[in-house]
Amino acid sequence: MKNKTPELTFIFPKGEKGTDDFFTGNAYPTALVDEDSIYNTLVGNVYFEPKARTKWHSHPAGQILIITDGIGYHQIEGKSIEIIKKGDVIKCPPNVKHWHGASAETGMQQLYIIPNTEKGIVEWNEKVTEEEYLK
Amino acid sequence: MKNKTPELTFIFPKGEKGTDDFFTGNAYPTALVDEDSIYNTLVGNVYFEPKARTKWHSHPAGQILIITDGIGYHQIEGKSIEIIKKGDVIKCPPNVKHWHGASAETGMQQLYIIPNTEKGIVEWNEKVTEEEYLK
Repeated sequence: MKNKTPELTFIFPKGEKGTDDFFTGNAYPTALVDEDSIYNTLVGNVYFEPKARTKWHSHPAGQILIITDGIGYHQIEGKSIEIIKKGDVIKCPPNVKHWHGASAETGMQQLYIIPNTEKGIVEWNEKVTEEEYLK
Repeated sequence: MKNKTPELTFIFPKGEKGTDDFFTGNAYPTALVDEDSIYNTLVGNVYFEPKARTKWHSHPAGQILIITDGIGYHQIEGKSIEIIKKGDVIKCPPNVKHWHGASAETGMQQLYIIPNTEKGIVEWNEKVTEEEYLK
């Protein structure tokens, strides 16, 4: 059975579907902490439905992901896809290209933390192709 | 009925009970991201059983709390206690004394983010008395 309904325990309101500029598939990003000069930290939540994922992108100061429910994939450029799941904490170093999203059959809920925002937030690149995603 | 069992949806392993040096009651802290010179960010989770709370404390670079389940209290020195619950995001500015914990009848699960750790992490103060807690 493909595309099982992701029975995630939602922590935040689901919000609106993210645009094709940043995501492939049905992803629902919600900003939680905006950039400012006190905390220099951006925090947000994304619900990914099965098969949804970000485009390739990088962060000038890196990124921390905290998986709060479901199962997903994370890939750093040049490395294999890693399976990530509820309770996992993932770091992506500064200026390293990566993508993250739900697995093919189960959705994923994740918090993202972007530290040191005075260095920049994100640079977006190309889509993750079906071939890359299914590898 | 007092002290209902908190039926929280645990994201992380519960871990070991935190010490009386930092907490009153049954609190279970788990480190998720340690301090380093790349991200300059400390992240962790705390499960608070009903009535459990931190001591008064402050952070040289401030703190962000993300409530992932349950109901709790947060108080900044000189202000009233605020009720915090699943989905809430709370900021405490640099060098401001505060405490946080579960409500009297329901537990709380929270993530904490301490940014800019090069400025310091935490300074601990006195216990939150029963009188302060029940106000």
